[in-house]
Amino acid sequence: MSTRCVQSTVEVHTPGRGLHDVTARVRDSVRASGIATGTAHVFALHTSCGLVVSENADPDVRGDLERWLSRLVTDGDAIFAHDAEGPDDMAAHVRSALTGVSLVLPVADGTLSLGTWQGVFLWEHRTAPHRRSMRVTVTGA
Amino acid sequence: MSTRCVQSTVEVHTPGRGLHDVTARVRDSVRASGIATGTAHVFALHTSCGLVVSENADPDVRGDLERWLSRLVTDGDAIFAHDAEGPDDMAAHVRSALTGVSLVLPVADGTLSLGTWQGVFLWEHRTAPHRRSMRVTVTGA
Amino acid sequence: MSTRCVQSTVEVHTPGRGLHDVTARVRDSVRASGIATGTAHVFALHTSCGLVVSENADPDVRGDLERWLSRLVTDGDAIFAHDAEGPDDMAAHVRSALTGVSLVLPVADGTLSLGTWQGVFLWEHRTAPHRRSMRVTVTGA
Repeated sequence: MSTRCVQSTVEVHTPGRGLHDVTARVRDSVRASGIATGTAHVFALHTSCGLVVSENADPDVRGDLERWLSRLVTDGDAIFAHDAEGPDDMAAHVRSALTGVSLVLPVADGTLSLGTWQGVFLWEHRTAPHRRSMRVTVTGA
Repeated sequence: MSTRCVQSTVEVHTPGRGLHDVTARVRDSVRASGIATGTAHVFALHTSCGLVVSENADPDVRGDLERWLSRLVTDGDAIFAHDAEGPDDMAAHVRSALTGVSLVLPVADGTLSLGTWQGVFLWEHRTAPHRRSMRVTVTGA
Repeated sequence: MSTRCVQSTVEVHTPGRGLHDVTARVRDSVRASGIATGTAHVFALHTSCGLVVSENADPDVRGDLERWLSRLVTDGDAIFAHDAEGPDDMAAHVRSALTGVSLVLPVADGTLSLGTWQGVFLWEHRTAPHRRSMRVTVTGA
């Protein structure tokens, strides 16, 4: 059976810095595509947030990830020349380069096929709430 | 020629923390797919290991990568609330977020098409040995 | 409409360490493929450079990213055993593991479909100028 390619856009509102579970939103896009076997590409159209696969059970993991990264990438670091939108502006670009803005996930049996403890998270790197758009491209048979 | 999509699962046993070469395993999946031109998506179904492309010639590189990352992400860091499985538990989740659990690799002439010095490595982030599953999806013509 | 898969190679010369905009080069490969909807996979065939999506407007962002990463990953770090090609050799491998060598980007309306402020950058991690090859695989309808 030959493959098809189905594209959609998912919008989410984030309450500010931290990891926000978007697994159900991506799963909806995969189901709507009607594709049974293949991959789902999720791409955030921004340079100050990220996308990661992480643990979906204990909320402490999300808190720890955020605390660890906030300590590594200091807001208002004296090394930064770019600060047009405040002390978290350039820190958010660094965090985005480290976490990436793109994920490819397996699709099997017509659904997103993750490990038992895996979720898909949009990691908001700015301190203020934002509206974020993700382009989802499902490719497969 | 229209494209196809072939999925398989690869299991590996890791002896504990560090980079383990899985290039031959991924190459086997690509060859078995019969696909000549396209991409291979490799996805680890876990939140405490990672997948990276790295140097395949000098084992010192793997040792240096592991030593560098162990120093950056401290086991039992006082900042961590999540420690259900010991001091390396949350450190492994941070390491996994940094390295990622997903790779897309080019396929050309019916085989994995990497640079001369590139290998594919499963990076075990836990200190104990683990069994790890990777889903491989080859898409192409 | 069934999908196709078109592969090409892009070569760039880098003047040394830092982020180099390759958006136009990738866009050319996407247009030449004739594919309207799908994904573009860009893969650097090296272990001492990286590929990232980052801010394309203010050159200060590129400078800040390079300064921040140079400080995090110290050239000639005493922890490194591998130094065959000089103090930036192993640092470049660490930087490459952190930034990744692979990107998947959305293709829509026959062109690369990025966010308003997003560009595609080859991040040279060695201090000397290098010639770098990227394999671009466009898959879609």
